[in-house]
Amino acid sequence: MSEQKPLILVTNDDGITAKGIRTLVELMQQLGEVVVVAPNSPQSGMGHAITIASPLRLNKVDLFPGLSAYECSGTPADCVKLAKHFVLKDRNPDLVVSGINHGSNTSISVLYSGTMSAAIEAAIEGIPAIGFSLCDYAHDPDFSHTHDHILKIAGHALEHGIPKGVAFNVNFPSKTDLPLQEIRICRQADARWQEEFDQRKDPYGRSYFWMSGKFVNDDTGQDTDEFALSQNCTALVPCQLDLTDYKIISELQSWNINERTAAIPSPESVETAKRSF
Amino acid sequence: MSEQKPLILVTNDDGITAKGIRTLVELMQQLGEVVVVAPNSPQSGMGHAITIASPLRLNKVDLFPGLSAYECSGTPADCVKLAKHFVLKDRNPDLVVSGINHGSNTSISVLYSGTMSAAIEAAIEGIPAIGFSLCDYAHDPDFSHTHDHILKIAGHALEHGIPKGVAFNVNFPSKTDLPLQEIRICRQADARWQEEFDQRKDPYGRSYFWMSGKFVNDDTGQDTDEFALSQNCTALVPCQLDLTDYKIISELQSWNINERTAAIPSPESVETAKRSF
Repeated sequence: MSEQKPLILVTNDDGITAKGIRTLVELMQQLGEVVVVAPNSPQSGMGHAITIASPLRLNKVDLFPGLSAYECSGTPADCVKLAKHFVLKDRNPDLVVSGINHGSNTSISVLYSGTMSAAIEAAIEGIPAIGFSLCDYAHDPDFSHTHDHILKIAGHALEHGIPKGVAFNVNFPSKTDLPLQEIRICRQADARWQEEFDQRKDPYGRSYFWMSGKFVNDDTGQDTDEFALSQNCTALVPCQLDLTDYKIISELQSWNINERTAAIPSPESVETAKRSF
Repeated sequence: MSEQKPLILVTNDDGITAKGIRTLVELMQQLGEVVVVAPNSPQSGMGHAITIASPLRLNKVDLFPGLSAYECSGTPADCVKLAKHFVLKDRNPDLVVSGINHGSNTSISVLYSGTMSAAIEAAIEGIPAIGFSLCDYAHDPDFSHTHDHILKIAGHALEHGIPKGVAFNVNFPSKTDLPLQEIRICRQADARWQEEFDQRKDPYGRSYFWMSGKFVNDDTGQDTDEFALSQNCTALVPCQLDLTDYKIISELQSWNINERTAAIPSPESVETAKRSF
C-alpha cells in the first residue's frame, strides 16, 4: 500500500442514523479516509432497486465529526452511483463497504438485500466491495464481536483487491456467550423464504396484506453460509455479477427451441382462441 | 401434456395497463388457463424489491374479459408471492411469464430488472419462469414480430420444464423492416451502465438530480445476448439464483483471511484513531 491512505466509501440500507453504519464508519477510519453516502431512511427489502422515475436528493450531514457525509433520498445502489459520480467527482474509492446490516443476508436473501445491492453496484463499477450483515434484527444489537473480522476482511480486500466482477457477502452470527470462531469462505445455501400473508381490514373495511415468512433451509451441505453461521463462524460468500447458468446452455441447445412443440396448439385452435379473446 | 390446460401466471413491471402485458396475456391464452396479477403502477428499476415495511393491496380488475386478473400495490416479486399464496391458494402455476417489458433487460440490466425479478421469484418457488423484454422503450411499440418466438419458448418450457434454480431472460430486438432471425441461447454480456447525473434546482432553490446513463458494452464475444440482438436474433439467457463464484473460492482460501494483513494498522495507531473519532 502507498503512503496515501486508501479512500473508503461507506453506505448501508438501514439508513444513515443506524447503529450498524456508525460501527462500520468507526472501524473503517482505522484503515483509511472515509466518505459516507447513505440513505436518509430505511431501505430494507429494496433488492437492486435504482431510482429512475423520480429525482434524487443529496444533503451534506454533520453526523460523523470530521468526515464528509451525505444522506440520499434514494436506494443503496443510488448512493453508490451518486457517491462515485458526484461526491467523489469520478474518483474511484479503493473500497466500498455496506452495512453493518441489522439482520441476516445469507443464502437467497442476497437477492432481496439492499446491503448487498450497494456492494454489487460497486463491483459493477470495478471497485472492491463488501456487504456486512449481522444475524440480529434488533435496533440496538451488540456488534462488538464482529470488529476484528471486519478489519481483517477489509484489510485483505485493500491488500489483495477483490477479483473483477465479484463482491463479498459477509454475515456474522449474533453475539452470544460463546466466542466467535473463524472466517469461512462459503457458498450460498440453497434455502428460501416461505411467505406468509396476514390479511387484515383497514378502518374503511378494505383488505390489506402484511407479508412475512419463515426461512426454510433444506441444504445439508457443510460448505454453506448457513452452516458456517450455525458453527458460530463468520460466513464470507464471493458473489458474482454474471447470472448466466453456463452448465445448462448445452442442455438447452438440445431442445431445438426454434422448432415448435406439441405444447403449442394448432393454427386452427389459435384462431379460435383469438376470436374468443 | 395432460388434457387439463396448463395454469399460466402473467405479470410484469410496467403495470397492468401496459400494452406489453396485454400482448403476453393474449399469447398465453393460446397455451393454457391464464391468471394475471400485476402491479397497479409502473415499477421499472425496482430490481428484486419486496414490500416488507408497508402493507400490500390487491384488487380484482376487469381488464381482461373472461380472465381472473388482479392489480397489486407492490413490486413484481410481491405479485408472484401474492399470486401463489393468496390468489392461487398455494397451487403452483405450471409457468410464470413476465413482460413483455417495454425496454431492454440484457446484460447487467438483469440485476435492475423488475421484469426478471418476477421470473426469478417464481424460480425460487420452483416454478418454470420466463421474463420477456423488447428492446424498445416506446409506450406503444410493435410487438407483432415477437409472437412466434414467445409461443415457442413458452411451449418448450411447458413441455420440458426449466431446470431447477434457473429462470429464462429473453430479449427481442425492436421491430424493423428486416425479418427477425432465430432464437439463440446466450450468456449475459459483460457490459454496464455508465451513469450520468443531471443536477437541477427546484422552485425553492434546492438541488435535485435526475439519473440517466449510457450503456457501455466492451464485450466482443459472439455468444452474448447483446451480440445476438445485434444480429436481429432473439436472445435467451438462462439465469441462475446461486450467486456464488465457485471459481474464486480456492483463490480466496490462499489469502489466509483469518490472519491480519499489513493493511491493518498497529494497535497503537488504532488507539489514536479511536480517540480522534
